[in-house]
Amino acid sequence: MDRPKVVIIGGGFGGLYAARALRDAAVDVTIIDRTNHHVFQPLLYQVATATLAPTDIAAPIRWLLHAQKNTEVLLAEAREIVPGARIVRCDGGRELHYDFLIVAAGARHSYFGHDDWEHRAPGLKSVADAIELRRRWLLAFERAERTSDAAERQTDMTFVIVGGGPTGVELAGMLPTIARFALPKDFRRIDTASARIILIEGGPRLLPTFPEDLSARAERDLVELGVEVRTNARVTNVGDGFVEIGSERIDAGTILWAAGNAASSLGASLGATRDRMGRVEVNEDLSIAGHPEVFVVGDMAILESDGKPVPGVAPAAMQSGRTAARNVLHTVRGEGRERFRYFNKGDLATIGRYKAVGVLAGRHLSGAIAWWTWLLVHIMYLAGFRNRLSVLIEWGYSFFTYQRGARLITADTPPPESRPPVPPRW
Amino acid sequence: MDRPKVVIIGGGFGGLYAARALRDAAVDVTIIDRTNHHVFQPLLYQVATATLAPTDIAAPIRWLLHAQKNTEVLLAEAREIVPGARIVRCDGGRELHYDFLIVAAGARHSYFGHDDWEHRAPGLKSVADAIELRRRWLLAFERAERTSDAAERQTDMTFVIVGGGPTGVELAGMLPTIARFALPKDFRRIDTASARIILIEGGPRLLPTFPEDLSARAERDLVELGVEVRTNARVTNVGDGFVEIGSERIDAGTILWAAGNAASSLGASLGATRDRMGRVEVNEDLSIAGHPEVFVVGDMAILESDGKPVPGVAPAAMQSGRTAARNVLHTVRGEGRERFRYFNKGDLATIGRYKAVGVLAGRHLSGAIAWWTWLLVHIMYLAGFRNRLSVLIEWGYSFFTYQRGARLITADTPPPESRPPVPPRW
Repeated sequence: MDRPKVVIIGGGFGGLYAARALRDAAVDVTIIDRTNHHVFQPLLYQVATATLAPTDIAAPIRWLLHAQKNTEVLLAEAREIVPGARIVRCDGGRELHYDFLIVAAGARHSYFGHDDWEHRAPGLKSVADAIELRRRWLLAFERAERTSDAAERQTDMTFVIVGGGPTGVELAGMLPTIARFALPKDFRRIDTASARIILIEGGPRLLPTFPEDLSARAERDLVELGVEVRTNARVTNVGDGFVEIGSERIDAGTILWAAGNAASSLGASLGATRDRMGRVEVNEDLSIAGHPEVFVVGDMAILESDGKPVPGVAPAAMQSGRTAARNVLHTVRGEGRERFRYFNKGDLATIGRYKAVGVLAGRHLSGAIAWWTWLLVHIMYLAGFRNRLSVLIEWGYSFFTYQRGARLITADTPPPESRPPVPPRW
Repeated sequence: MDRPKVVIIGGGFGGLYAARALRDAAVDVTIIDRTNHHVFQPLLYQVATATLAPTDIAAPIRWLLHAQKNTEVLLAEAREIVPGARIVRCDGGRELHYDFLIVAAGARHSYFGHDDWEHRAPGLKSVADAIELRRRWLLAFERAERTSDAAERQTDMTFVIVGGGPTGVELAGMLPTIARFALPKDFRRIDTASARIILIEGGPRLLPTFPEDLSARAERDLVELGVEVRTNARVTNVGDGFVEIGSERIDAGTILWAAGNAASSLGASLGATRDRMGRVEVNEDLSIAGHPEVFVVGDMAILESDGKPVPGVAPAAMQSGRTAARNVLHTVRGEGRERFRYFNKGDLATIGRYKAVGVLAGRHLSGAIAWWTWLLVHIMYLAGFRNRLSVLIEWGYSFFTYQRGARLITADTPPPESRPPVPPRW
């Protein structure tokens, strides 16, 4: 008998952990991704802020799975799923047949129907995004240095971050330290320390998924660093060089977007119910209605655990990927399936040097203890990456010198993800 | 009296060392470059071969000169020099006045009048070039893995390097080791070790600027690694996916260009005599005829020392940059100028593990001793970079594991250098 064929779409946390859970199993696995690398997303903001190099937090998916003999990795973009025919259509017209499908294509940023805002306020989901964000704020200081117009200079030195979730908070927390400690001596005409960093959140508080006391602490920490925090402020327009909050206009040379997710549009071809964010409704075993052989995991799925919604974080993606993979194996072996249950190990968000907030085993942490915990946890999770040592060195370097080693301006193009990764000529 | 204003065009070795030689002098220095970083060019091929990260060998020019109070750094592209008016015209219409000008804009690759070959066979001069080269050969293996057409696969697994100078030899030497040791376990359908690497040199021997016995040794070392070395072979055409040597056609998915330089076209606006490669004729003090206040250094100048031509290598750029800077100071102080004299510290080219060739203090080195010397010299020269430690770690890692840590495919666009670096809005 032929071994069942499992196709996994996406090499993020969901897809990678699903593939790993199928190691040594009597199935043939194909994992496809439109990039060649897995990204350690929780540290992406450190690439965007020039602290780490892209290679520190990304590794080839092939390399991560090279010892897994039943698994092959394909650089390709899934364009459409045909559940009736059990086929995934990729770029270049290639079709992949599957017996089981695990869809883990993740999410992009949502601009709430204003897609034209994207190039004015790019988001942070991929390595290419991080390089683009890095390029933008570095260029803003360069422009400020070379202009002789005071108003233009003021605009160039204003940085707006839209969205007060962990990514927004982490970006906003990094910039003042860089502007005040890493850059001043490098510039002659501008005082980089006078840069304005504005964090805009539509809801009443930062880090809405965290307990209220930690939201308050994060805000206090950011204000102490010099960030202007604006809560209950809805961005109503993003123009070239400005954002509008109702009738108020803020001129800003750099606008970064960290608000709202939209699940991959690949979900549309599944025929299942989807929510406002495009996430797919799944059964308790993570399969979709009418197709027990199709699973959706990670940010693409409406995940629930014991009836409670599960946040779109890396551990939820890993755990759901693993559950889906185990349910494939249960089915192959004729066993019953298991329900997805989310084990919340805790939440952490870092703000600055010795400043972080988090919940760990039910306890609320903040300040230095939270920061050390954050450091430890992230170093541990980078395991499996060969980059742990180099990350430690970079962090040690930035910590003691306040410098940023990765201040390269290397591209000025839209993220390559929007284009096919290879000349389509199968 | 106003302090004399010195403008330096280019932040490569020539420009950077000129700027450093003006440290603490009673002049105001402006150094401009179209990128924000200085590149340690001799190690660029290691970025192209995914051994080092771009940030390991590049550092912001601002940061390298931040302690030099009389110097400012401007991110701008020089478009034209008007020696009569002592003005440099930059992108965006900005004009810089100078009392002394040091032109160190370097060289790009020359395609011998076939500019359409460039996108088919990109060269290696900038960080963006290196990322593009890395992307190309990584994608070639990805394409080979996913095609089911044997002929296409053979083409994708064929790599042609045009030009047998140090860059061509170093690129050609790296690829077989990667194909044979770093990649095989990552792929399922192809045997990466069967990749063909072909090095094409128009002249009779590799490394034409080295002594003949070392050329022979380099060729032997490369052949031992599995490289097909073709000397006396002139490329007559570069097409999409093939090169032609006369009537012979070689199908190759990846073609890299390491043949021939053309000095920056900026030299044309100086009005001085130029040679076939666009290099500018300079006096013994490195100034140009009729303009004692304009100096040309590095790859842009026809450098001679004691009547003998000086090769276009990093030490020659550094030394000529320093001489020009000192001649500026001599003039400011009313002293006589000095002649440029090249002190040849030696030449080294690395081929592979324990394989290198070089001349040091008149002695010909090859094999392991040359390789260790190369390593030591490059680590020493990376000083002034903060990246020394991380480079050492990366090298140690690749050496002992045969792996390549920087295998990211992150962009698929032409080098950003061909476009203005910032929105021109002065």
